Amino acid sequence: MCELMGMSANVPTDICFSFAGLRIRGGATGPHKDGWGMAMYRENSVWSLHDPRPSSESDLAVLMSTASLKCDIAITHIRQANVGEVSLANTHPFHRQLWGKTWSYAHNGQLSNSENLTVQQSVMGTTDSERAFCWLLEQLKDTFGEKEPNVNTLSQKLHSLANELREKGVFNMLLSDGQTLFCYCSTHLHWLTRRAPFNVAKLKDTPLDIDFEKVTSETDVVTIIATQPLTDNEKWQQMEAGELVVFQAGEVIESITCTE
Amino acid sequence: MCELMGMSANVPTDICFSFAGLRIRGGATGPHKDGWGMAMYRENSVWSLHDPRPSSESDLAVLMSTASLKCDIAITHIRQANVGEVSLANTHPFHRQLWGKTWSYAHNGQLSNSENLTVQQSVMGTTDSERAFCWLLEQLKDTFGEKEPNVNTLSQKLHSLANELREKGVFNMLLSDGQTLFCYCSTHLHWLTRRAPFNVAKLKDTPLDIDFEKVTSETDVVTIIATQPLTDNEKWQQMEAGELVVFQAGEVIESITCTE
Repeated sequence: MCELMGMSANVPTDICFSFAGLRIRGGATGPHKDGWGMAMYRENSVWSLHDPRPSSESDLAVLMSTASLKCDIAITHIRQANVGEVSLANTHPFHRQLWGKTWSYAHNGQLSNSENLTVQQSVMGTTDSERAFCWLLEQLKDTFGEKEPNVNTLSQKLHSLANELREKGVFNMLLSDGQTLFCYCSTHLHWLTRRAPFNVAKLKDTPLDIDFEKVTSETDVVTIIATQPLTDNEKWQQMEAGELVVFQAGEVIESITCTE
Repeated sequence: MCELMGMSANVPTDICFSFAGLRIRGGATGPHKDGWGMAMYRENSVWSLHDPRPSSESDLAVLMSTASLKCDIAITHIRQANVGEVSLANTHPFHRQLWGKTWSYAHNGQLSNSENLTVQQSVMGTTDSERAFCWLLEQLKDTFGEKEPNVNTLSQKLHSLANELREKGVFNMLLSDGQTLFCYCSTHLHWLTRRAPFNVAKLKDTPLDIDFEKVTSETDVVTIIATQPLTDNEKWQQMEAGELVVFQAGEVIESITCTE
């Protein structure tokens, strides 16, 4: 399996603190040693890093946990390979174009018979994850054509498609177009929003804490999403199986659960 | 057009100094403002960064010009878009799998009728560059099948394929599998090898110099390849049109020119 981490904020924000905690799980406090990657959006421009080395040992990962690069939305992934060898091509997040934007995606879980997901475009690597991503976006395009729907309609459709994928196994997902962060929970996904009054946060995996009061403004709203809570002195909200939570600028704008 | 920079060394080496010079050309001292990227290989593992923002303004690029990440081979590219919009998918270097390895490639130039290059796999972006890369690797696979040839045979074939591409326009290329760096010149490509006795080098584009004597060991051999010389006090070797120079561990192991 793997671990996911996402961030959505109303002001450009770095993910150093959270990534410092996540990175250790990539081969040290956790078994997710088969590569890591991140996508960061600022003003709708996305840049990305992919490294098939363990994040606990990678000098690039150390750098990204200490150097403050600020973004509006981030998607980060540390991998424990099950389907597909350890390689750059199999390192999340994956990226594809749709509706004139670059979509970024990372997946935690495993899908049975993912080869049955019909996709038109080529899958670059050999993971079920990337195939599911291509399938998702192609389903969206088949449904909505060239015109992007509003975020409510899109969220409903994404929820329904993610439910279909969940029937094939485990499908925890982070997906973004740079404005909106879609988070779907199949088994494990937690989130918390930090806003004034800010407090000290302490990482679980490494002796590091930060006083967010000192590094934020009063109006900052920053949400962190993670497979497992990254801090041990804050209240993380556990998502339900089959729940899609949608964030913009750090705030929840949609939450869709399975009605069954 | 774009600018290329490559590095091959016999000891893990960072590219901070050279990239500090190149980065400025991405929108400040040069017009190549449409994104930048780099691939770095160490012990055959490759990690990569892609950023569609101008390297002269990107905080990630600033970081990469100051933080010492050491590698054996690097390929870096700053882009001035001609074919294909500014996007992550069109940001070099590109990566594909062949013979169980990840190949990385960056291109400077423009090819006419690149849509006539028949490729089996999907091209992710919309550049002639990526299409030419896919074509190149597929030609290699068609020629050699599943068994990788020795580097001499491979170099001969690559030279012949690159000559074909050069007939379509301008094709300056850097290509690597992590062990070998293949550099093909169509119009502009320069290189220099630094080895003991080391000296001070001064960048052309920004007031920065470095005394390599202080940061190297006596046995270090480091070759830098660049579209245009990055320093103004060193002797760069200009490649010929139609020349392929092949480096391993900082040393030239093949040099093939057009016989015509």
